[in-house]
Amino acid sequence: MTAKEIKIAPQQKILLAHGSGGRLTHKLIRDVFLKSLNNPILSELSDSAKIDYKEKIAFTTDSFVVSPLFFPGGDIGKLSVCGTINDLVMVGAVPEYLSLGLIIEEGLDREVLEKIINSISLHAKRAGVVIVTGDTKVVENGAADKVFINTSGVGRIINKGISINNIKCGDKIILTGNIAEHGLAVLTKRKDLDLGLSIKSDCAALNNLIVPLLRRTKAIKFMRDPTRGGIATTLNEITESSGLGIIIEEKNIPITSKVRVVSELLGIDPLYIANEGIAIMIVGKDSAKGVLNFLRRHPLGCHAQIVGEVVKQPKGRVILKTTLGTERIVDMLTAESLPRIC
Amino acid sequence: MTAKEIKIAPQQKILLAHGSGGRLTHKLIRDVFLKSLNNPILSELSDSAKIDYKEKIAFTTDSFVVSPLFFPGGDIGKLSVCGTINDLVMVGAVPEYLSLGLIIEEGLDREVLEKIINSISLHAKRAGVVIVTGDTKVVENGAADKVFINTSGVGRIINKGISINNIKCGDKIILTGNIAEHGLAVLTKRKDLDLGLSIKSDCAALNNLIVPLLRRTKAIKFMRDPTRGGIATTLNEITESSGLGIIIEEKNIPITSKVRVVSELLGIDPLYIANEGIAIMIVGKDSAKGVLNFLRRHPLGCHAQIVGEVVKQPKGRVILKTTLGTERIVDMLTAESLPRIC
Repeated sequence: MTAKEIKIAPQQKILLAHGSGGRLTHKLIRDVFLKSLNNPILSELSDSAKIDYKEKIAFTTDSFVVSPLFFPGGDIGKLSVCGTINDLVMVGAVPEYLSLGLIIEEGLDREVLEKIINSISLHAKRAGVVIVTGDTKVVENGAADKVFINTSGVGRIINKGISINNIKCGDKIILTGNIAEHGLAVLTKRKDLDLGLSIKSDCAALNNLIVPLLRRTKAIKFMRDPTRGGIATTLNEITESSGLGIIIEEKNIPITSKVRVVSELLGIDPLYIANEGIAIMIVGKDSAKGVLNFLRRHPLGCHAQIVGEVVKQPKGRVILKTTLGTERIVDMLTAESLPRIC
Repeated sequence: MTAKEIKIAPQQKILLAHGSGGRLTHKLIRDVFLKSLNNPILSELSDSAKIDYKEKIAFTTDSFVVSPLFFPGGDIGKLSVCGTINDLVMVGAVPEYLSLGLIIEEGLDREVLEKIINSISLHAKRAGVVIVTGDTKVVENGAADKVFINTSGVGRIINKGISINNIKCGDKIILTGNIAEHGLAVLTKRKDLDLGLSIKSDCAALNNLIVPLLRRTKAIKFMRDPTRGGIATTLNEITESSGLGIIIEEKNIPITSKVRVVSELLGIDPLYIANEGIAIMIVGKDSAKGVLNFLRRHPLGCHAQIVGEVVKQPKGRVILKTTLGTERIVDMLTAESLPRIC
């Protein structure tokens, strides 16, 4: 039987042979991946993507094991594209090329795979990035959970000045959007919690929001996207690395009342809940207002807020000034509260 | 409890919290990954690695799900480094930077993880590449099988002329080493087959063999490493893409008698068995002998052979001239014979 004679019906399940590297793998690549993700570099199907660069590039990797695969506001495909794009943006780069590595459990519905790949294609297009190389493995039933995705990415660095070492006392902390939506969206979907308050993941590619800002100003000293562990964990990473302190004001943290209510119902502190479409920015005192105004003109930045500032003491600590007027230390996440969130 | 007070005993198992992005993730990164893989770029622990480039780069990705994790001649860590290095070399690049994405099953022995990371470190050092960015996810027991690894890689392209389009009739096919060792090593280990003939995987990074050749000559027209699906599948990829035919001579294919015997005992055609340390090269007729002599001076190339040539007819087909004097069509692998081989 030659390649042309093999027909894969749309309802067919992914088999071990789809990961063999042989005929069925080739057919799967052509019929599913190339069909959806086609571009001149990927369609070469060579062992490595060849990319023209004359500049400093950024290179990142992220694996995605989210469960369930589909949740309000996103899916594992969208997440894998946005997550890697955001990692590149955080270091001052323009995301350009992504790789796509799939580990698929035997028996996965082909329809599910196509839905995921189509989502990857859509969100890559929207963000202006291309998937230029990929790999697919299939493991036996029970050896993985449906599908895991790795996306690595490269991009041109347009702002070489972004570094934790630039941060100093008095710098302002900006949150570009509402917190805690991704984690709650995945959790409530997974547990089938019908709280009458549907929460959508904030999952989004931040390059269209932030790259124009990077082109316009050198005011951003440092950025990080507060994914697993939430803003509490990311702020602690910043204080630990910089040796400085951070004070944030609870009243300024952008959060919807829905998220606040659901967090309270579930007994989870929203500061520790994963985000997938916001960034924490450290910006010089005098530039903060201007950056904020710029961010707010974009749909992804319309809820941006200055939430606090960098301080000398307490060294290495994050302090929350609560709405009640008290202060408390916000530590890093120490245990897994929400597994398989991304 | 602060970071400094948390102690992880060497025998501790990987928990879900190790993949949370929080404290235990940080500790794991510092104690296991940074300790073993430390380099200035990785130790920045930024969201993306920043790499200086002024040239054309190659970028590739590969996931590894091999079972068992340790096998004669290698392990999943060595495999993940060598596999990605080889993919870069195949397109004419000098491998330089790798990413490392881990998906770990909760309950994995820390010792096993350290052994794998140490192997990654060792083989990356030997090959002169650095792991510059990484990601770790942990999934619940039963949602993965011990550990899956994704390595993506980038490298400078030093030979821009390597392309399937350069191949023409009369070109010679070189195999750089003995075939079918990786697949058999993994399979016999997995099945605990004691055939009295222990076979070691050929798993090896090919950059030290091939990069000097790329610097010396433009004679190599095309290369591919025949991993899953074996040399039969890779040769078919070449004929399908080029629209040309290939004739190979069985008597010239480098294979040990041990491999031949074990393949026969197991009833598997060695042409379809995965390799992880050899390349198929298409070389101009007049340069083939010179390339062969160069390869043979290196331990990884000492068994190199000219195994066949590119022909016009039969278009898109691979023909094997057997030692019995007959000819047969060698098709691509159509079913999964050896799952979880890489």
